[in-house]
Amino acid sequence: MHTLTHSTHGKSRVRVSKILRPREKPAVEETHRFLEAAVEVLLEGGTDAAYTDGDNANVVATDTVKNTVFALARDTDYDDLPTFGRVLANHFLSRYEHVTKVTVAMEGHTWHRLLDCPHAFTGSDAEARRVTVVAERGQPLRLADGFGGLMLAKTTATSFENFHRDAYRTLPDAADRVLATVLTASWAVNGSADRDDFDAVFATVRGALLTAFVDHHSVSVQATLYRMASAALDATDAIDAVTMSMPNKHHLPVDLSKLDRENDNVVFQVTDEPAGAIQATVTRGR
Amino acid sequence: MHTLTHSTHGKSRVRVSKILRPREKPAVEETHRFLEAAVEVLLEGGTDAAYTDGDNANVVATDTVKNTVFALARDTDYDDLPTFGRVLANHFLSRYEHVTKVTVAMEGHTWHRLLDCPHAFTGSDAEARRVTVVAERGQPLRLADGFGGLMLAKTTATSFENFHRDAYRTLPDAADRVLATVLTASWAVNGSADRDDFDAVFATVRGALLTAFVDHHSVSVQATLYRMASAALDATDAIDAVTMSMPNKHHLPVDLSKLDRENDNVVFQVTDEPAGAIQATVTRGR
Amino acid sequence: MHTLTHSTHGKSRVRVSKILRPREKPAVEETHRFLEAAVEVLLEGGTDAAYTDGDNANVVATDTVKNTVFALARDTDYDDLPTFGRVLANHFLSRYEHVTKVTVAMEGHTWHRLLDCPHAFTGSDAEARRVTVVAERGQPLRLADGFGGLMLAKTTATSFENFHRDAYRTLPDAADRVLATVLTASWAVNGSADRDDFDAVFATVRGALLTAFVDHHSVSVQATLYRMASAALDATDAIDAVTMSMPNKHHLPVDLSKLDRENDNVVFQVTDEPAGAIQATVTRGR
Amino acid sequence: MHTLTHSTHGKSRVRVSKILRPREKPAVEETHRFLEAAVEVLLEGGTDAAYTDGDNANVVATDTVKNTVFALARDTDYDDLPTFGRVLANHFLSRYEHVTKVTVAMEGHTWHRLLDCPHAFTGSDAEARRVTVVAERGQPLRLADGFGGLMLAKTTATSFENFHRDAYRTLPDAADRVLATVLTASWAVNGSADRDDFDAVFATVRGALLTAFVDHHSVSVQATLYRMASAALDATDAIDAVTMSMPNKHHLPVDLSKLDRENDNVVFQVTDEPAGAIQATVTRGR
Repeated sequence: MHTLTHSTHGKSRVRVSKILRPREKPAVEETHRFLEAAVEVLLEGGTDAAYTDGDNANVVATDTVKNTVFALARDTDYDDLPTFGRVLANHFLSRYEHVTKVTVAMEGHTWHRLLDCPHAFTGSDAEARRVTVVAERGQPLRLADGFGGLMLAKTTATSFENFHRDAYRTLPDAADRVLATVLTASWAVNGSADRDDFDAVFATVRGALLTAFVDHHSVSVQATLYRMASAALDATDAIDAVTMSMPNKHHLPVDLSKLDRENDNVVFQVTDEPAGAIQATVTRGR
Repeated sequence: MHTLTHSTHGKSRVRVSKILRPREKPAVEETHRFLEAAVEVLLEGGTDAAYTDGDNANVVATDTVKNTVFALARDTDYDDLPTFGRVLANHFLSRYEHVTKVTVAMEGHTWHRLLDCPHAFTGSDAEARRVTVVAERGQPLRLADGFGGLMLAKTTATSFENFHRDAYRTLPDAADRVLATVLTASWAVNGSADRDDFDAVFATVRGALLTAFVDHHSVSVQATLYRMASAALDATDAIDAVTMSMPNKHHLPVDLSKLDRENDNVVFQVTDEPAGAIQATVTRGR
Repeated sequence: MHTLTHSTHGKSRVRVSKILRPREKPAVEETHRFLEAAVEVLLEGGTDAAYTDGDNANVVATDTVKNTVFALARDTDYDDLPTFGRVLANHFLSRYEHVTKVTVAMEGHTWHRLLDCPHAFTGSDAEARRVTVVAERGQPLRLADGFGGLMLAKTTATSFENFHRDAYRTLPDAADRVLATVLTASWAVNGSADRDDFDAVFATVRGALLTAFVDHHSVSVQATLYRMASAALDATDAIDAVTMSMPNKHHLPVDLSKLDRENDNVVFQVTDEPAGAIQATVTRGR
Repeated sequence: MHTLTHSTHGKSRVRVSKILRPREKPAVEETHRFLEAAVEVLLEGGTDAAYTDGDNANVVATDTVKNTVFALARDTDYDDLPTFGRVLANHFLSRYEHVTKVTVAMEGHTWHRLLDCPHAFTGSDAEARRVTVVAERGQPLRLADGFGGLMLAKTTATSFENFHRDAYRTLPDAADRVLATVLTASWAVNGSADRDDFDAVFATVRGALLTAFVDHHSVSVQATLYRMASAALDATDAIDAVTMSMPNKHHLPVDLSKLDRENDNVVFQVTDEPAGAIQATVTRGR
């Protein structure tokens, strides 16, 4: 007889969209908002007998989890994803006594207003809001906000020099190079059980990260990441730490010497693999 | 002995980026443009013996094709993708006598300027410029411009009613529904061997398509597609036909009746599959 | 007023699985087959007024198309995908007078029997059967069978030498190299309106292609492609032409000289992009 | 001044293939093995100053990491991925004094022998070996073996009944249903610093998992997962715990009643999203 030391179940990729309609005017005259997310809800607790004895009594079917996501999307008055995620996490924990922990992970799909039309939108698959809410019995609710997939590049004012030199190094120092990355960032939001300004905090943090990406000469991805994270921490006291991933998506200068041409930092080969991985967490000074 | 009735070879996914640098000021002070594309070049003609007799004499190695893309990116003064594609197609046809047809297909990666910084950019993976150039010996060069991956949605002012009714139909008429799609559009550009205003034509066509998407009540994807295409044809005489694909990416109203709730066009399940396919070519009136 | 010069609509990615059950014994004792495919059905004809006048009367809704795929999967006694595709194509053409052309494209998902269990299966996402059926009013039905995604490699007995030499070539001759590819092949099946041996023809063609891939020293992808296609044509008179794509998915010898090591064809860097494109159609000798 | 509380850097997706050549006979006569993996190496320790002060002295460039992967692939005599991963992890920890932790993650690409040819192979993208090695200063090396992407299905002998019932449940009990999943499994290997039988352990564990998937009536994914994990633990004492993910990839019976047809468990709609998530760790009984 072996021991179930951890287990979880739920539903992934419940893709739900919602039209926020004021309902004060005919549909074509009113201004809509259009929110979309892929939601995952994972439950822990109370289901060991399902694994070991085939007893399904405490198993909230993953289909039931899906139903609940749609029902609460209908019931709840939310206009940001973190608020909806918080409602979901609290619901599952309060409704099912045997559940000890609920994790809600949401990936937003961004719809921007199109040509000032009150009901037309254009979308994007690249940058996506990512929200994770954890509700655990007897503990304060935790919520991490953030985003992934934000492509950034600088075509000058970036260098990488004087790094470790040994027999395995062949890369020369570069005083001027392209820096391109896909930024992922996440941050726990203080007091997330109660606050209602998630979108404002998000905009502040994202804005600070971008401004700091642009405002200096980068001597390494590492130094730029730290500067960006620090700027975010300086911009709002709603967060106390930022975790970031900034892989180096290489634009490599093409060696044209065999083709009798110079390439003075003009033409680059773009590759996704291999990619330099650079990740860090920066926490408010202490 | 069997017959080689068609053959082609070349290089796919040559991903090249180029910094357009005025070189009038120090690098950090000047304003850069940053162009990136994945280029495919396919050659036809003169290589039958490679297939049937193992004679490689006329095979321009796919590696050589790749080298050429990078070399011409360096040599050529272009600031739009169609111009670069035209240079590539003409080069291969004029340089290799045995080649009878060259097809260059480019997928652009969009880099937008970031925060007004002269050398910082943010990118997107969704909407992508798509350019195809065909150079055939003895024929005028043909160039098709366009884009793919443009996500669009309307949350009202769209309906679908009175469509064919028979025993296989279960979908009810909808007087108000979500219309979401991913628009692909392409158009041959008149006189493309000589012109130098591809980006201007592109902006005109794309703008007309979007304006027409927004400006009316849609009674079907088909009617909206035709209206958009017509608007593009009306907007410029640089093109005489538009081919468009507008798959119906469904946002389906969730049936909440079993959960004792009404869903008055508020909450939708989003699915990528199956998807409605709607494609058409509209040609200048005649 | 502009002209609709081409249009089509239908449903893509209708993913349907079917259990073939003899129903002679209890379910757990009988031997099942499990067939799965993603089906696309596109209709042409009779819908111009939908585009130009907003008249939906002849529009068979894409949802209706989807319903039909499921209903005919239930009604039809098929045990191969081409037969099911033929039933679908014939159905739409015969049922809807205004439809002039039907195209059914299917991508199979392979389920292999697992451990000799009569009802357990293991799947694969790589190689996939691809079937296209075209039914056009007044013309014989055409059916193309084939597959995509078959990864193949040879670690020796492949070379590439004496190819075109000019100023853009930097690749040296290679007397021994890795050849890796992802094979796509398709072939029209003769008399496809009536025959019932599609799976047997498929097995013969696929077997001949693989045997010919293995049985010789390859002097180029082109020569190997032609040899494989010829072997398929020699193996069965059910087909008269084969179209193949064999991109060169590069395994490039790593230059270890800067790291003071020789690399005598042992270690390779694998890249998906750029890839050499090689495509051809070989037709029965004439 | 903020604090760097965690950081790591390295190289992702270094795709390396290696031909194992006995070199006792001419290349075309000897039997090759062909190993391929995408390798990620992440380093921790000693680089805080790069973030906070722009001091790159201790930064082993991600390019150097890549060089090392290729060089050690050349130097090392390995015929399984875990052994190569262990060599890599030990190398980085012993060579760089400032590094305190090395994580090597490998995703294998499977090449099977083709038609008994000694140097021809066919590949698959679905199931992939996944190996993670962690070398931390002052601690024993840890190695987790496993795989992902193994598609499995049962067409009968699976049910799901008597699960939690409440107002959010709409799914009926199912006495006979399709169970389809994509299995991911991983297990720490005991004594991994020294052993040389990783492939044998892998084959034993994988075989036990599959046999247990097939050999019983499944009353839930949970119960089947537990049975499979228990079988693996019973099959070898080289492991003491297994972590598994078995998402429910739904094949939903199509409701054909509106189309006047019965569907007695014959035709199913296949969907990837939403998917049921079921994950657990089972540890040797204690």
